[in-house]
Amino acid sequence: MHSNPQLSKNGELQHLLTIEGLPATLLTQILDTAQSFIGVTEREVKKLPLLRGKAIFNLFFEPSTRTRTTFEIAAKRLSADVINLNISTSSQSKGETLLDTIDNLEAMHADMFIVRHAQSGAAHLIAQHVAPNVHVINAGDGRHEHPTQALLDMFTIRHYKREFANLRVAIVGDILHSRVARSQIHALTTLGVPELRVIAPKTLLPAGVENLGVHVYHDMQRGLKDVDVVMMLRLQSERMQGPLLPSAQEFFKYYGLTAEKLAAARPDAIVMHPGPMNRGVEIDSSVADGPRSVILPQVTFGIAVRMAVMSILAGN
Amino acid sequence: MHSNPQLSKNGELQHLLTIEGLPATLLTQILDTAQSFIGVTEREVKKLPLLRGKAIFNLFFEPSTRTRTTFEIAAKRLSADVINLNISTSSQSKGETLLDTIDNLEAMHADMFIVRHAQSGAAHLIAQHVAPNVHVINAGDGRHEHPTQALLDMFTIRHYKREFANLRVAIVGDILHSRVARSQIHALTTLGVPELRVIAPKTLLPAGVENLGVHVYHDMQRGLKDVDVVMMLRLQSERMQGPLLPSAQEFFKYYGLTAEKLAAARPDAIVMHPGPMNRGVEIDSSVADGPRSVILPQVTFGIAVRMAVMSILAGN
Amino acid sequence: MHSNPQLSKNGELQHLLTIEGLPATLLTQILDTAQSFIGVTEREVKKLPLLRGKAIFNLFFEPSTRTRTTFEIAAKRLSADVINLNISTSSQSKGETLLDTIDNLEAMHADMFIVRHAQSGAAHLIAQHVAPNVHVINAGDGRHEHPTQALLDMFTIRHYKREFANLRVAIVGDILHSRVARSQIHALTTLGVPELRVIAPKTLLPAGVENLGVHVYHDMQRGLKDVDVVMMLRLQSERMQGPLLPSAQEFFKYYGLTAEKLAAARPDAIVMHPGPMNRGVEIDSSVADGPRSVILPQVTFGIAVRMAVMSILAGN
Repeated sequence: MHSNPQLSKNGELQHLLTIEGLPATLLTQILDTAQSFIGVTEREVKKLPLLRGKAIFNLFFEPSTRTRTTFEIAAKRLSADVINLNISTSSQSKGETLLDTIDNLEAMHADMFIVRHAQSGAAHLIAQHVAPNVHVINAGDGRHEHPTQALLDMFTIRHYKREFANLRVAIVGDILHSRVARSQIHALTTLGVPELRVIAPKTLLPAGVENLGVHVYHDMQRGLKDVDVVMMLRLQSERMQGPLLPSAQEFFKYYGLTAEKLAAARPDAIVMHPGPMNRGVEIDSSVADGPRSVILPQVTFGIAVRMAVMSILAGN
Repeated sequence: MHSNPQLSKNGELQHLLTIEGLPATLLTQILDTAQSFIGVTEREVKKLPLLRGKAIFNLFFEPSTRTRTTFEIAAKRLSADVINLNISTSSQSKGETLLDTIDNLEAMHADMFIVRHAQSGAAHLIAQHVAPNVHVINAGDGRHEHPTQALLDMFTIRHYKREFANLRVAIVGDILHSRVARSQIHALTTLGVPELRVIAPKTLLPAGVENLGVHVYHDMQRGLKDVDVVMMLRLQSERMQGPLLPSAQEFFKYYGLTAEKLAAARPDAIVMHPGPMNRGVEIDSSVADGPRSVILPQVTFGIAVRMAVMSILAGN
Repeated sequence: MHSNPQLSKNGELQHLLTIEGLPATLLTQILDTAQSFIGVTEREVKKLPLLRGKAIFNLFFEPSTRTRTTFEIAAKRLSADVINLNISTSSQSKGETLLDTIDNLEAMHADMFIVRHAQSGAAHLIAQHVAPNVHVINAGDGRHEHPTQALLDMFTIRHYKREFANLRVAIVGDILHSRVARSQIHALTTLGVPELRVIAPKTLLPAGVENLGVHVYHDMQRGLKDVDVVMMLRLQSERMQGPLLPSAQEFFKYYGLTAEKLAAARPDAIVMHPGPMNRGVEIDSSVADGPRSVILPQVTFGIAVRMAVMSILAGN
């Protein structure tokens, strides 16, 4: 396997598949480009002609209103033509293989695929298959990665904290099943966060997570002690009753973010969540809607970050 | 509760939530603006740049192909970017609350929400929640109101009858469950229709309907006597077998509009229906497709009226 | 019945409903217009303003991601506004009739309807109903016709073989249920292909197929002997276990296109398939992905052909 299939030989981004393996300079280039788009979304007319005439396919093999919508908005702001395809895996299994579907859409002169798929590696598979002028963005693959989410998170942290070099950051919740967490850990490490913690029960931690360069905590009071950034994760509802967790109530008691637990963090700590939130499970409403929450700015920055990724890919 | 949350302090329309409480001058302003758009829809190129770069969200919590489509067409004629979100209440109940969904879409720089929801007051709730630069249009909330339908009906009546001051108007059918009827009654009363009648069986009339300024009839022959305008309502299929009605056939016998019953109205009376029609239940095909039907012009005027509402809101 | 409802009195194309009955000059005009669009899809900015401000409705009463998408892309390349309506026949049966739906969409100033429907003749019915300035394209009706598929097939054949006058062409598979095959047979015959063969088991051939001007073969070796073009058909999965066929495996053994069977054809024969393919049922992957396959170019040409049909209709 190619060490980094998303980079061209001269190091340009061809696809955005993972945060793992991307150099800090490239992450910073994306954040800087996103910064230049922030003004656009606040102008009266929010359109830029950068992707005019480009055909962008939102290929969602898993349902996702929110992520699909942010990509659709970002693409339309860049004047692209957007085609939404929600492909259930059942209809997929009936006939064509995934790569036949891709071949056909590429034959329709697709310029870019935004792919969400339940199987880890699906976006990689597509990226290895398409012609050199076609770009692929991973919008979440199985438990693997969700790179644009991590990038918008980095944008948010940089916006509020200016630099990464002195930060103490904690990621809280279901690390085991979270593609968001994996992407966040790679991004924070690459951008030079000196102290990165994960806080979770043992049953929701992947084996060998320490090897990713994180400190493991099972206790919120200790884990949140003096952190600058608290990054909550979503708990999938199907796991709330499962063998890994006693119950949603129990989870909230020990790992739900309340004002009381948050008091252990630094007074200017920010609170993040990738959404959609389970209020009363991962996070208390008083914190989610409180003065230290930057959850809605995350969404806003997500548009600019996705515009940045799309325009960088289209330019390469 | 604020007496009229849809108006700004200086009386400008911020949201369109109800017809109730809107002054006649404002209704007339909307109809006049719609009139100015009629020419546009007949031009070779039907686009106006008034909403270019604006992001308009069609938020439909109840399925509706027809109303959603007319809003989508109206928005595209004004050069807006339209995002369609069909959100089933089941998926809604799984995770995020309604207001979390709205917060997120607003964080994506939504400029306008078109909302249909099974619960009365949903559009109000959203309007009270959003930032001052975001506008909400109620596209039907529970049994409460459907204001753009009433406005296109007023446009249609004014088109064919010129003024409201001398008209006798009858609304026929399931008044009890109809948000359309409620909006129509408020609009007709506000615009000065001197004689407004409702015709329905007792089981399909709301308690105290007389207090809205209407005359109640249970008999079509008497109720339609010398009216200028007949406004039929749709009978929801789930009610055709219910305890409120003996059967669809029975309903048609007594309250279905036939040429014979229509003979009681004035010779130049117009026949309206908000669609979709149940032919042979509320209305006979000979009347629906007959020379006095203005049912299809209603649809056409609906585009111009929705363009008018959107452009007035965006301008305020 | 009018001999050819899709042509105006002076022979101009008003609707595209069937290939049957269209003169060769008109088919050639469409192919030539499509040729002029090929360059557009390879340009950096792929937009032409020919249909700017036109409202095109994708009316799909049967699900079809692929065909709907190609029409959507073609319409957007021509700068039209596209409204996608996926109407299940169940919701259709609930309320409005098909023609009421059409009347309403027409009242919204639709300029063109792209119609797919399970019932043969549905597009005809709509074309006979709409106003003279509204155009209808049949995107597949029951077992009847799928004219744009046949046109893109003709474009493909002309692209690779230059002319139709000396060709030997074989259509292979489930002729009986295939609207694609019916359209192909009419197109190939009209364009002057001197020898047209169909290869299928007796149970998958319509009665009297010889009257369409084709030679019938039940054996692949003989049927493919010296042909220039092999046109495979899709086998509907619901028929693979039915009384007409022993099994998918059995079908592949006798009628699946393998390299071995293809050896009977001319050395420069091309292999076509309308997609989506059932690999290992109608066609072996080595052939589908092999050097003589033109299956993906078919898809690409399909965009240009649909742009051609739309722009010709809009201009007439």
